[in-house]
This record gives sequence, structure tokens and C-alpha cells, in this order.
Amino acid sequence: MNFSSALVTFPDKEWAKSIAEEIIKKKLAACADLFSIESIYRWKGNINNENEVGAVFKIRSEDFEEFSECVRSLHPYEVPCIVSYEISNGTDDYLDWIRESTIRD
Amino acid sequence: MNFSSALVTFPDKEWAKSIAEEIIKKKLAACADLFSIESIYRWKGNINNENEVGAVFKIRSEDFEEFSECVRSLHPYEVPCIVSYEISNGTDDYLDWIRESTIRD
Amino acid sequence: MNFSSALVTFPDKEWAKSIAEEIIKKKLAACADLFSIESIYRWKGNINNENEVGAVFKIRSEDFEEFSECVRSLHPYEVPCIVSYEISNGTDDYLDWIRESTIRD
Repeated sequence: MNFSSALVTFPDKEWAKSIAEEIIKKKLAACADLFSIESIYRWKGNINNENEVGAVFKIRSEDFEEFSECVRSLHPYEVPCIVSYEISNGTDDYLDWIRESTIRD
Repeated sequence: MNFSSALVTFPDKEWAKSIAEEIIKKKLAACADLFSIESIYRWKGNINNENEVGAVFKIRSEDFEEFSECVRSLHPYEVPCIVSYEISNGTDDYLDWIRESTIRD
Repeated sequence: MNFSSALVTFPDKEWAKSIAEEIIKKKLAACADLFSIESIYRWKGNINNENEVGAVFKIRSEDFEEFSECVRSLHPYEVPCIVSYEISNGTDDYLDWIRESTIRD
């Protein structure tokens, strides 16, 4: 089984926490690490600058589609940042914890 | 088209913001997420400890060389950290936004 | 030679700094970038919420096993987060610095 880290950015800590808790409750991710960021980005021709909150989720790679659909259904942005990076290596017990935390009926 | 996240570290927020804005203006990246870090590193035989600012840029994978040359030309360090990680998955609209934000004539 | 970024999470800055310094002294990593996170995670059926410290280490990919065994031997958690992501691209001088900083007799 392959695992990934999925990065999503949010307007603030409240949005990040409420969506992260919902995703983890639904067992679409085992955990989320939240951290403050200052985002500089191009949007409709302008360069903008916002304080945001990033969240790195640990997921099964096969769940990315279901994970991203659930995030999108809850997220306030028109085009939220939802990308993932393959975990190339991990300790057996930790990866097994991700697997167990994402078993859905 | 493949996309990547490129990580660069800077001495402080001012350096990070000015270089990030320049890179995004030149459409070598769609965005940059800046965050505070404490860096512990080996340099010329000693272990040093500095407060720095990390920045994760979203780029086209094919642009890494041009991106890193531009960062280097602006960066104050002798050997700046410029590495990238392949984005294995992403929502179509978000990846398309990266593509559109990095179209150069 | 392949290189990776290894992510480990710690209870606080003191744990992160002491283990990171030990790992770098042993040349199992070239550097560590520490940053504050709020972690939301599922553990034994409950969803918990803790302030932690994340650390991203730069390592040789071939050293992951020795790196993770050393981290585990020093880490206070029962199942610490120890995962890695392949560096797909990097500037020659920076990657060479990682190589040189992780030469062990």
C-alpha cells in the first residue's frame, strides 16, 4: 500500500481545524499538521499576499480523489490548493498506523 | 504536464518576500508559501543554528533549472537550499491554475 | 546518489533540537529545519489535538533506515512520525553539500 502527504491551504486556523477534524473523523486521513504561512500568489493578473494556514495530511495514496472531493465540499475557496506528495519511505509501525486510521467500512 | 513544489530557505522574511515576488512576477512560479523555521545545519565543520524563513513555491517541473538560476541570481547565500519534490496528485483546477500562472511568452 | 527530505514530529522545540543536533553530529543528516505545528490525529479511537514541532531533515535516501533507527532510539513517542520524500531536483552545489555533510567513516 502507498501513502502520501496531502497539502491543503486555508484562510485561517478555524477553517483548517474544522475541515481537518471532519476529514479525520471520516477516516480519509490519519492526521493533519497545521502551520502558519504567508502566501504570495498570482490571481486574476494581480500578485496578492495573505496570511493563511497550511495543513499536511497523511493519507492512503489511493484515497486522494475521495479526500480532495471531501475537502472541496467543505472549503470556502473557489480553487483550493489540494496537492499530494508520495511518501517514499516510512517506518513500518507509523505507516501501519496511517493504514489502520484510514480503514473505512 | 508535471508540477513540483520547490523549497528555498532565506535569511529572513524580507529576503523571502522580495525574491518570491520577483519569481512570481517573472511567472517562474504560481505562488510561494512562507513560514518561519529554525535551521540547524553543518557548515565548514561546525553545527550552526539560525532563524530563517522557508518558502515552498509551486512550479512546472520543467522550469526547475530556470527557476533555480533566477533564485540564485537574487539570493544572498553562497550555497542556497533549492530543491524540489514532484507533485504526485492534485485537483485539476488547481494544477491548471499553476499552468496558467506560469505561461511565459 | 539520491537525496530525500525526512519529516519527523516532536513534542516540543527542546526534543526536536536535541535529537536534530545528535543526528547531524552523527552525519546521518546535513541539516534540520524546525517549525511549529498544531497536530490533529487519531489515536486509539480518539481524535487528539497537540502543539508539536515538525522537523524536515535533508538526508541521503540510502541512509533512511539508519536515520530512522537513530531517531527512534532517541524519541519519546511509542510510534513517532518518521517518513521521507524523494528530492526530485536540486542545485548541484546544494546536493553536493548534503553528500559531503553525510560522509561517515
